[in-house]
Amino acid sequence: MSLIAWPVPAPGLPADVHPALAAAARAASAAYGSARLSLGRAALAEEIAMGADGTPTMRVDAAVEDAVAESAQRSGVNLLSEEAGFLDHGSALTLVVDPVDGSANAASGVPLSCFAGALVRDAAPSEALTVWLDTGRTWWARTGHPTPYRTSGRTTLDGATVNLLRPKRSNRDAWLRVLDRIGRLRVLGTTCLEAALVAEGSVDAFADAGSDTLRIVDLAAAVVTVPAAGGAVIDARGRALEFDPDLTRRWSAIVAATPALAEEIAAIIVDASR
Amino acid sequence: MSLIAWPVPAPGLPADVHPALAAAARAASAAYGSARLSLGRAALAEEIAMGADGTPTMRVDAAVEDAVAESAQRSGVNLLSEEAGFLDHGSALTLVVDPVDGSANAASGVPLSCFAGALVRDAAPSEALTVWLDTGRTWWARTGHPTPYRTSGRTTLDGATVNLLRPKRSNRDAWLRVLDRIGRLRVLGTTCLEAALVAEGSVDAFADAGSDTLRIVDLAAAVVTVPAAGGAVIDARGRALEFDPDLTRRWSAIVAATPALAEEIAAIIVDASR
Repeated sequence: MSLIAWPVPAPGLPADVHPALAAAARAASAAYGSARLSLGRAALAEEIAMGADGTPTMRVDAAVEDAVAESAQRSGVNLLSEEAGFLDHGSALTLVVDPVDGSANAASGVPLSCFAGALVRDAAPSEALTVWLDTGRTWWARTGHPTPYRTSGRTTLDGATVNLLRPKRSNRDAWLRVLDRIGRLRVLGTTCLEAALVAEGSVDAFADAGSDTLRIVDLAAAVVTVPAAGGAVIDARGRALEFDPDLTRRWSAIVAATPALAEEIAAIIVDASR
Repeated sequence: MSLIAWPVPAPGLPADVHPALAAAARAASAAYGSARLSLGRAALAEEIAMGADGTPTMRVDAAVEDAVAESAQRSGVNLLSEEAGFLDHGSALTLVVDPVDGSANAASGVPLSCFAGALVRDAAPSEALTVWLDTGRTWWARTGHPTPYRTSGRTTLDGATVNLLRPKRSNRDAWLRVLDRIGRLRVLGTTCLEAALVAEGSVDAFADAGSDTLRIVDLAAAVVTVPAAGGAVIDARGRALEFDPDLTRRWSAIVAATPALAEEIAAIIVDASR
């Protein structure tokens, strides 16, 4: 049994995070830490069910989501989550959460996985929290409030540092066209952390280059955090990013330092898809 | 000025690390932490000289290497390092070091950069240390001693998790041929951390798919750490990986969970280069 050797630290949460969101993040971190202590890599990665989003649920996803669902119930808020779908607890507030973003990393020990979520009232997010589970680093933003994060401000693609979702067969051409234009490529396998790096100015953009892979739970935190830092989150094909409980809806999201950079990447992806 | 917001923790070093290697690692970590406190991203990334390896030296590289060079001098050992080349302090021992592996990450705030080095006597490495600067996580191995690390043991490429050095125009075909065979791609931009992840079994392999980019300073720690964990480090074109002070020598290294997996990747790269 191949255990992951490193502990999972408690997240460093700001004091003003909404209690329901903070509790969910702490529950996710604790559950992931416990799972790594008792389960080896193969057990964490085992696909044990089919999630509400139509993709298989790994044991690590299920373990962390169970803890998040219990936390949401204790907090008295609804939950929209990757595996379980929408859990209605009769609240005006809904946590829209990816309990473990970067599941494959989380199961294999690549130290790049996140809890990420937004608190939503009437389809409008009021705040968002991203926790890098492996280190406890946290990004938090409230809609309409200043944040300490500032994107790189980059407006053009040529030479930019861009993180990409890994290519699929369906979008190989678009993926390579973006690659041809950029200065540095990263593929970290964790959308939520990659969006946080855009928000704080460490990379210029993150994109799903047209594979229509991302769900609202993958994007909820970015939709709050990145615009507050001066950036933009759009869909390559212009579809609105909506807080919709239907997790079969997918987007090819572009998370970029500026609206201009996001639009430039979108144009390449759309052009390649024609 | 866009400062990187996160502190750099002191590395967690095992007690038995050779004092010269431990001191160099501590010096690198402290210097990187200081540089991030006072210099913004653009200043850290500024190319201020040409290194002994024939590539430009960023300010962050220079700052950390200066600290490592002072440390080696205090310890009375020679140093072979990315920017300065070989510094002869009249010792039988040489530290072969990449002071900041993943320089672009280190300068931009992507939290994936390492100090990595090996202690070498008469061209034979006796021990190696990798420190993930952003978290203080450490991997240490001694030649001929058991280690706690165990690779994934994977022997075949189809469906494997493989980290690749980002593609260059010269090796696009080989890069895509490897990509076509694997299950998951990661591009982290830090060879030494990626090799440590192979050693501990978190990814199956890391490869430069034929671009002949890597120098002995990038590979010194892997050459000790990965075989001790059951894996292999080879050159795609079969050239011996030698501790040679000539830093213009380059390799297309493959770091893999098993010799069989390394050879399978090498065969694809060689075939694509024909």
